[in-house]
Amino acid sequence: MITPKISNDPYAELERRFARLSAVNRAGAILGWDRSTMMPDGASEDRADQLATLNVIAHEMITAPDMPELLARAEEGGGSLSRWQAANLREMRRSWVHENALPADLVQARTRATTACEHVWREARKNADFKSLLPTLQEVLTLMRRVGEAKAAALGTTLYDALLDEFEPGGRSARIDTLFDELRAFLPDLLGRVLERQKREPAPLALDGPFPVEAQRRLGEELIRIIGFDFHHGRLDVSAHPFTGGTADDVRITTRYDETDFAHSLMGVLHETGHGLYEAGLPRDWRRQPVGNARGMVLHESQSLLMEMQACRGRSFIDFAAPRMRSAFGKGGPAWTEANIHRLYTHVAPGFIRVDADEVTYPLHIMLRYRLERAMLAGDLALADLPGAWNDGMRDLLGVVPPDDALGCLQDIHWPDGGWGYFPTYTLGALAAAQLFAAARQAVPGLLEAIGKGDFAPLLAWLRTNVHAQGSISGTDEILTAATGAPLGVAAFKAHLESRYLPA
Amino acid sequence: MITPKISNDPYAELERRFARLSAVNRAGAILGWDRSTMMPDGASEDRADQLATLNVIAHEMITAPDMPELLARAEEGGGSLSRWQAANLREMRRSWVHENALPADLVQARTRATTACEHVWREARKNADFKSLLPTLQEVLTLMRRVGEAKAAALGTTLYDALLDEFEPGGRSARIDTLFDELRAFLPDLLGRVLERQKREPAPLALDGPFPVEAQRRLGEELIRIIGFDFHHGRLDVSAHPFTGGTADDVRITTRYDETDFAHSLMGVLHETGHGLYEAGLPRDWRRQPVGNARGMVLHESQSLLMEMQACRGRSFIDFAAPRMRSAFGKGGPAWTEANIHRLYTHVAPGFIRVDADEVTYPLHIMLRYRLERAMLAGDLALADLPGAWNDGMRDLLGVVPPDDALGCLQDIHWPDGGWGYFPTYTLGALAAAQLFAAARQAVPGLLEAIGKGDFAPLLAWLRTNVHAQGSISGTDEILTAATGAPLGVAAFKAHLESRYLPA
Repeated sequence: MITPKISNDPYAELERRFARLSAVNRAGAILGWDRSTMMPDGASEDRADQLATLNVIAHEMITAPDMPELLARAEEGGGSLSRWQAANLREMRRSWVHENALPADLVQARTRATTACEHVWREARKNADFKSLLPTLQEVLTLMRRVGEAKAAALGTTLYDALLDEFEPGGRSARIDTLFDELRAFLPDLLGRVLERQKREPAPLALDGPFPVEAQRRLGEELIRIIGFDFHHGRLDVSAHPFTGGTADDVRITTRYDETDFAHSLMGVLHETGHGLYEAGLPRDWRRQPVGNARGMVLHESQSLLMEMQACRGRSFIDFAAPRMRSAFGKGGPAWTEANIHRLYTHVAPGFIRVDADEVTYPLHIMLRYRLERAMLAGDLALADLPGAWNDGMRDLLGVVPPDDALGCLQDIHWPDGGWGYFPTYTLGALAAAQLFAAARQAVPGLLEAIGKGDFAPLLAWLRTNVHAQGSISGTDEILTAATGAPLGVAAFKAHLESRYLPA
Repeated sequence: MITPKISNDPYAELERRFARLSAVNRAGAILGWDRSTMMPDGASEDRADQLATLNVIAHEMITAPDMPELLARAEEGGGSLSRWQAANLREMRRSWVHENALPADLVQARTRATTACEHVWREARKNADFKSLLPTLQEVLTLMRRVGEAKAAALGTTLYDALLDEFEPGGRSARIDTLFDELRAFLPDLLGRVLERQKREPAPLALDGPFPVEAQRRLGEELIRIIGFDFHHGRLDVSAHPFTGGTADDVRITTRYDETDFAHSLMGVLHETGHGLYEAGLPRDWRRQPVGNARGMVLHESQSLLMEMQACRGRSFIDFAAPRMRSAFGKGGPAWTEANIHRLYTHVAPGFIRVDADEVTYPLHIMLRYRLERAMLAGDLALADLPGAWNDGMRDLLGVVPPDDALGCLQDIHWPDGGWGYFPTYTLGALAAAQLFAAARQAVPGLLEAIGKGDFAPLLAWLRTNVHAQGSISGTDEILTAATGAPLGVAAFKAHLESRYLPA
């Protein structure tokens, strides 16, 4: 390989290198999508080799020996850069710090350990056998501590914040503690009142299936097209675990269909559409540079939850969508009324499984995981004691105790997969979603009425301008403040829950 | 990027580098498949950027400054290498010579010119307007001459052979001239006798459709599974132009369906299956090194034509497949008899379009293109005179003259796309297919009877051993000689045509 000469314009040279890096990463994103949707089983080792090679190439690009000098020289001359260029340079530095923090052998060890652990975890969960997971998960935890220490030294943060920072740039646990304490102060009480109130109302009637996959697919496509998903720049496919992948110009969202239950899959599609619209709306001129990437997982999750929870589980959208649901499956009767479908989609029930949780109890699942992963990383909780601590926490926070570890501490892939520090972004995203949706409603008169007519253009235009097109121009809180007048807080989320679940 | 230090074991270092190069190329192969099958239209520019970047990275890897020294040192120490390692080193050198022959600006100019020309060609063909293609095609021709000159200097061959060598390593026009002269000596006469004989036989009855796509897909999947296509390591999808892509562990074949004609699409699927089986059978231990790649386009086309023309258009396979065709579409009657379907699949008729040609007239289409592209590259035929020369050649070789250039010199993508030197491999592949199939029949008693029962295992086992697993261990002629006792010749092809079309 050729070591390129340092250019006379170091910033321009950095843009050239990061454009190439972006192309490699975008190629990897499509290959990752293919792996989960199209790839035949027998090709997994082949694909792993391709993706690992692209990762090594990307790592070598970003940690090239002359990169520190290039960055430093560009930063010295930073006065002449535009606002976007300056932000781009800041994001380049950020990428470099993260990539450079870890020695190659630690990166490889983490990849090996998480791949092995994920494999063991699938069996362990199936058999509700935590003990069988313990050795490999301990290996992952040990390595994640080393990763956190190395990144903490590079970033000048605590170990936990260094892990969090990879998913949510600038995210800090001191901030999360405050927000979660505020949530904790009202959520259990609010949950109790919601459950009380629900008891006095008619129980939602189940929708009678079966629901042919093809009809579900057509309904999903129809609705997300209406919302603004652009099939000229994207696809909707099937995977075992729904996700949004691909690139800003080529957004690949996925779902899974269950012929006995379309309602769950449909909301999943609307959720991924929120993620996909964010990607598709990233700033056109910068989407192949670091500053043109999505800001972080908090804003990303805010976009999916805004679409799913704020917009599409609201009565306006249900009023619009219910006739289309009836027509898609040729159904009618009391279960298929707007009122009943809305009741189904806003039913609250403490349960064991995070991904099945309603929006009132979901944050409690997250608080538990956040509390436990911090304790494990700090060495305050031995991994062997996790199942007991989990069950204690469930009793404390949700008032239910799972009958086995498959429904308990084995349910999520995040820890086996190395996603330590990821969990809080779900709930921070929910707070941001409520805050952004409230601001959009205030800024755009008639927003709900438009949604009720299937007109998402006003909402999408507001999100494009205030969130999507901002890319990574500034931090999450700066973007939120510019859009809503305040940094991330719990007030809008609280108001949303009260208005939806405890209306006067 | 880091310039790696020359290792103490130069051959091992080369294997390491070429393994990485292979991973990049395999990633590109999947992305290329996705572009033709899955990618939404709006992503084409994004994808072009990804693929161009991977190409540049691959080019930089192979033309790294220390590569000549590494290759030379490995070749000096070549005495200690195994047979496969030595062949691998030879293929590495070959790759390096081809990649290194062209200056970067010429590669870029060619990419730009062929991309533009292909675009213009689609319109020109639609409008049967050769004049509109002339300027961009002239640009491509000029650049292909420069490419040929540069490669000829590097390879020590003629200009045409240098272009041919990229598709068929070691392929030389002197050899092709001899083979084509031999074909020319009997093919027109044989064609005349076949057409005479056909007149005396019942005309084939058309199969009555429509043929629902889903039924076609199921029938195709059923038959190629029987033949040996492994869906654990491959897929069958739809694209505008059928092709075989992906990797040896992840073979992606495509077709297109026409609800008014399943017979054409089905043979297309069987053709691509032949390509796919070759890829899937490449030597397991070497498929990520140059020596583990398919030998060249002659053997590749031999595998598709052996499957389609030799095996599947033969009466044994038709006897096996016809009941499945009837059942797939719920059909019966005189058109659906084994005899009639076989007549349909072996009907001979001189026509204008190469891709629709039967196996008797197909070589005549190729001879025309071979003759014309050599003349154009040599400067003996001006591009402006191509339509007239084409029509003269069609009259001379096939006795028909296309009514316009869309059915004439505008029909193929190869010249606009830069595929100069490719055409002869089709017919050389047909010769190799006949020669290999005859050898397989001789080596494996009861081969046709097994095919008649849907048992392709004996044929596939023979091909695996004698062709697929050879990878690029030696040249096309060496592989053919080891498999059939003789280098490439016309005798088996002639015997095949006589036995199929002029049985005693």
